[in-house]
Amino acid sequence: MNTYSIGIDIGGTNTDIGLVRNDGLCLAKKTLPTGMYFDVEPYVSDICHRIKKLMSENDAAAIDGIGIAAPAGNYYTGCIEGATNLNFKGTVDIASMFHSLLDVPVVVSNDANAAAYGELVYGGAKGMKNFITFTLGTGVGSGIVVDGKLVHGKTGGAGELGHAILIPEGRHCGCGRNGCLETYTSATGIRRTATELMKADPNYNGPLSKVRPDDLTSKMVGDAAQNGDPLALKVLEMTGYWLGIALANAVAFSGPEAIFLMGGPVKAGEALMKPVRDSFQKHLCFVYDGSVDVRVSELPDNDAAILGAAALTKA
Amino acid sequence: MNTYSIGIDIGGTNTDIGLVRNDGLCLAKKTLPTGMYFDVEPYVSDICHRIKKLMSENDAAAIDGIGIAAPAGNYYTGCIEGATNLNFKGTVDIASMFHSLLDVPVVVSNDANAAAYGELVYGGAKGMKNFITFTLGTGVGSGIVVDGKLVHGKTGGAGELGHAILIPEGRHCGCGRNGCLETYTSATGIRRTATELMKADPNYNGPLSKVRPDDLTSKMVGDAAQNGDPLALKVLEMTGYWLGIALANAVAFSGPEAIFLMGGPVKAGEALMKPVRDSFQKHLCFVYDGSVDVRVSELPDNDAAILGAAALTKA
Repeated sequence: MNTYSIGIDIGGTNTDIGLVRNDGLCLAKKTLPTGMYFDVEPYVSDICHRIKKLMSENDAAAIDGIGIAAPAGNYYTGCIEGATNLNFKGTVDIASMFHSLLDVPVVVSNDANAAAYGELVYGGAKGMKNFITFTLGTGVGSGIVVDGKLVHGKTGGAGELGHAILIPEGRHCGCGRNGCLETYTSATGIRRTATELMKADPNYNGPLSKVRPDDLTSKMVGDAAQNGDPLALKVLEMTGYWLGIALANAVAFSGPEAIFLMGGPVKAGEALMKPVRDSFQKHLCFVYDGSVDVRVSELPDNDAAILGAAALTKA
Repeated sequence: MNTYSIGIDIGGTNTDIGLVRNDGLCLAKKTLPTGMYFDVEPYVSDICHRIKKLMSENDAAAIDGIGIAAPAGNYYTGCIEGATNLNFKGTVDIASMFHSLLDVPVVVSNDANAAAYGELVYGGAKGMKNFITFTLGTGVGSGIVVDGKLVHGKTGGAGELGHAILIPEGRHCGCGRNGCLETYTSATGIRRTATELMKADPNYNGPLSKVRPDDLTSKMVGDAAQNGDPLALKVLEMTGYWLGIALANAVAFSGPEAIFLMGGPVKAGEALMKPVRDSFQKHLCFVYDGSVDVRVSELPDNDAAILGAAALTKA
């Protein structure tokens, strides 16, 4: 018999709500403009209306639970705690609000942890006990699964590998420190590397030189690399080098059986993945030789965030 | 009622065997010269004789189990797997050998993991669910506890933070790679830093300059620092800086409530611990502010290894 759960992916701009069947198919989605709400009560109430609609439109008589992936979402408390990119300030007990309106179990976490759980329940990590996911986006998120469970740590904030320091005293990070992994390997970091390389090579006249600096994206770098642009290829080679070190360091921590990469920059394919794997092999401590796969996420791009959120209900 | 267990600490030179009471007191110890044995059967048999003697001499009628801390000891298999500093080559199923002679549960792990378990069962981490230990010795070992359990990873080799890369393309490491944490913050790394600083300052005529380079030890550096020698203080300041980054990175992984440091170099006291804490605070991601203590191990120096091994029986 089919069962259903709801995945909610809260972003600063939009909130995506999806009805997910137990076999991992996202049957239908609805979207709300997060940024248009300044109070959390009508926001939650409007989401609940969408959930009921999704259920009735898809003949789902009941749902097992609701999983919410939110910025600064805390698994232990069910609260959003001081998200900087939401209008809802301070600590918002969002799990309780949904629970009181719909009376089903509600699980909250941040989007990187949800992504790891999505991979475990619906993706390439099915059946795995120990793995790590890295999500390359505006920043770099990570989710760590040890012995089949997400690592949350003492306060719920474990798995911030985007803010592990890769290069001491290196690039300045938005968090106020220097050298964080995400300044090198996020989409933003890739743009930064491209800008630096173009500055260092005034004779470069490839496709990226035609773009206004402010308009440059990591997708353009990836596309140019796939079309053989040497500078773009160099950017991804450097990105892969840095990321490979970070993956090797993560392995020295929890000795996982696989690492999954996801997010926009990964779409550059082998132009990024080959340098990642090369650097990973070079920097991996010999005791782990041959024991760890570096793979691309197997969640469908469009529904990955919703599947991750829905998977939290299986946590 | 008192219960007893046996802790065995296997080193390349000596093997220490201790009888440990349930309250964490090591009642008595015996030592065997590991390096004198070239076959494992007589070695194990001689240890078993010592265990029986320890029991009869201390009125311990029975033991709950035997914990063995061994180089390349694997928790999952109970084997020593290719230890480079032992005469017993290849894979040695040491747990089965002890079990067949004494018929009690036998648990095997490496010494760094045993140290973490010792801290959990008998030391400063009692009652903690999430913490990490770093042992500074010839190398740097680490043990990671998540949700009350040691992290072993897929193959039993998790927690090799001494071989996480701190400085990409940095100091050459015995493992064949460059920039590993232990090349900077082990006893050996401290000696290396002192030698580098002395080379860079030919006018230095402090106590360390009187020692032949081959005879220099990290203990001498620690002693000189405690006596105010500026070069030795600088060495520990640099060591603390590097170690603080590594601790901050470890926190970004598992979000522990404490990190414990142990091993010879820690005996330098505040000359090392202050720079460690300063660097840790500087490099810790803000989401963990105020949530993590950096502490010195609370296991008694002389019995720490045996207590760690014995604690494995509570795993």
